[in-house]
Amino acid sequence: MKAEIIAIGTEILLGDIVNTNAQFLAKELAALGIDVYHQSVIGDNEERIIESFEKAFERCDLVITTGGLGPTQDDLTKELGAKYFNKKLVLHEPSLDWIKTYLDMKDEAIVEANKKQAYFPEGSIILPNPNGTAPGSIVSENNKILIILPGPPREMKPMFNDHVKKYLEGITGEIIKSKILRLFGIGESLMAQKLNNLIQNSKNPTVAPYAKDNDVTLRITAKGNSEKECDDLINPVDKEIKDALGEYIYGEGETSLENVVSEILCNNKLSVSTAESCTGGMIAASLISYPGISDVFKEGAVTYSNESKMKRLGVSKETLDRYGAVSEETAREMAIGIAREANTDISISTTGIAGPGGGTDEKPVGLVYIGVFIKGKVVVNKFNFTGNRERIRRKTTMNALNILRKELLKI
Amino acid sequence: MKAEIIAIGTEILLGDIVNTNAQFLAKELAALGIDVYHQSVIGDNEERIIESFEKAFERCDLVITTGGLGPTQDDLTKELGAKYFNKKLVLHEPSLDWIKTYLDMKDEAIVEANKKQAYFPEGSIILPNPNGTAPGSIVSENNKILIILPGPPREMKPMFNDHVKKYLEGITGEIIKSKILRLFGIGESLMAQKLNNLIQNSKNPTVAPYAKDNDVTLRITAKGNSEKECDDLINPVDKEIKDALGEYIYGEGETSLENVVSEILCNNKLSVSTAESCTGGMIAASLISYPGISDVFKEGAVTYSNESKMKRLGVSKETLDRYGAVSEETAREMAIGIAREANTDISISTTGIAGPGGGTDEKPVGLVYIGVFIKGKVVVNKFNFTGNRERIRRKTTMNALNILRKELLKI
Repeated sequence: MKAEIIAIGTEILLGDIVNTNAQFLAKELAALGIDVYHQSVIGDNEERIIESFEKAFERCDLVITTGGLGPTQDDLTKELGAKYFNKKLVLHEPSLDWIKTYLDMKDEAIVEANKKQAYFPEGSIILPNPNGTAPGSIVSENNKILIILPGPPREMKPMFNDHVKKYLEGITGEIIKSKILRLFGIGESLMAQKLNNLIQNSKNPTVAPYAKDNDVTLRITAKGNSEKECDDLINPVDKEIKDALGEYIYGEGETSLENVVSEILCNNKLSVSTAESCTGGMIAASLISYPGISDVFKEGAVTYSNESKMKRLGVSKETLDRYGAVSEETAREMAIGIAREANTDISISTTGIAGPGGGTDEKPVGLVYIGVFIKGKVVVNKFNFTGNRERIRRKTTMNALNILRKELLKI
Repeated sequence: MKAEIIAIGTEILLGDIVNTNAQFLAKELAALGIDVYHQSVIGDNEERIIESFEKAFERCDLVITTGGLGPTQDDLTKELGAKYFNKKLVLHEPSLDWIKTYLDMKDEAIVEANKKQAYFPEGSIILPNPNGTAPGSIVSENNKILIILPGPPREMKPMFNDHVKKYLEGITGEIIKSKILRLFGIGESLMAQKLNNLIQNSKNPTVAPYAKDNDVTLRITAKGNSEKECDDLINPVDKEIKDALGEYIYGEGETSLENVVSEILCNNKLSVSTAESCTGGMIAASLISYPGISDVFKEGAVTYSNESKMKRLGVSKETLDRYGAVSEETAREMAIGIAREANTDISISTTGIAGPGGGTDEKPVGLVYIGVFIKGKVVVNKFNFTGNRERIRRKTTMNALNILRKELLKI
């Protein structure tokens, strides 16, 4: 099956917003085995919207639009969808009731213009919108299907996931199931090598990587006639990936490295503290993004100056004089110092040169030491990161969390 | 003048990447007074790319493409640009030299496939690419102009700014100048009201707002025959905006709230420390993103537990028992405590309920106190923020920086 995605809205043509909807839909359609050969963006203009429907339906049987469902005269998508299929617009009472309820919850009165949002091309399937006043709709005739979705991603995405996906599975006669593996610390080329063409040659299930900084996501997607059939396709591939890359996999599904680490700490009631120099609070802030962390996070110290490293953490003057603030020895004393001061089971320390200034031949920009203290034992890792100040600090934060995760798995 | 933007690349059709190039180009073209009525995305397919050139040039005189300039057989843009205009591809020696130099710098050898990147449609203007191996080009005939740019944004954007903009100004016969004002703490509706239709009715210069969280950018853009003519158009509008909104404006051009605050601290040699509860290190991390901050940032404390508030900052047990950890009094003692402990001129403290749990009727999720200590004087501000845990913490951070900025302007 072939499809096209059309975004409708002058604000996208003017560059006021990025068309992230197209990416989301493209990814979902690819996973459903539906080919997308064209995406386009059109303004709120009757003639050009109708022309785009005509062109698209010459080339394919399924068109998905986003945007143009608002209450104003500019919003034309349903009206022109009806015109294209030669259908009239009819009122859908449950949608009108919903719009009233929704506006009521927001303490807004319904205005005449909102009523337009409850009219749809005759014979449409209505797609409820729990997150706004613009329900979506599916209108079809002669094997041409037009799926009309709202523009705001926080309305469009749940509508696709909750209604459109099932509808499309019904058409393609298959169900789709995905499993997401999250990896840290492996480059794309090493991953490609280790997976031995699993990614490139995968058909069903497909294995799709997505890399950002050192954080890599692998999505295994199977098509089948039942959940079980999908699971039977996914499981051996899941096992193959885990056998090859197990040490890099930190989680599955919707999670993050900081959540995984925080969860281990909370579940095992391990108290934690941080002593940060170059990361300057980023590690503490990452851990504290986890809602339950207050049970175990005791204290963080941002000891940017030598003075504070000595006073707050008890790093010795001799160590600083002899090895410097950016050294294995300082990282070690920082980790021990904060664990002692805050009386915690675990601590993390960082010290490094984030740049752009401050580097020397011996200690270049990007040199970072990360210390992890676990119940009396300290490990210090040395890194030479590349990139600008922000990237070096971010890489330090992520690597510190990953080192702690791995050490926690050992106890 | 009318233009279309065509992104070429199967990776966009598959949803592997977001087409941010289209937004960038759309914004730039709008500022140049060039109308964009269509944007589209096409895969790496000869027939469909040629068809898209034909359709686009039926509707307009200027087409800008991104992508498809790589060394592989899949990369077809220049080849099909040449085919569309019935021109042959010719070698551009300086580009070949550059490709060799660039690969050399990266310790990579030039392969046969790279040579393809130095061939262009005959008669093209070549656009150098200091950030990669794919120079761009401009090919035109019979008043139809095709501008061919690389796909990676970090190559495409500088190429547009450094070469294409001037070329387009030469065609439109005008130069364009922008001034950016940065505001914090004003909502979009209040801004619209205060600017009294300045935004909606602006023609030359135009005034375009862009809002994200509480951070608002106003871009004043003038068209004229000279820099001076542009300045003469911008200055009175700049003054009008500053008269109306001066208190909200924290900076001009490429900067951020944390940079502005850090700059004031550094320029005035004011030492600073932080004591954070709900923000958990985010304020320290923000300040430390500024490269010169090590001169003035002395120490940050992430005092998430009551115990650490007492031990580290000297917050009294009576205050915590009587008013609670989230209270004006605690925020005040935290700010005083860290300034004393770290011996700094300035300090910032935060304490609040970031949620999702922990709220009560009296102290709901979103309640935050921010304390600022400046040379012996403390001010505490109370907020009731909305949103999820991350948004509440982010808003707290930004507001803390803004309060400090305003207080610093008074001394």
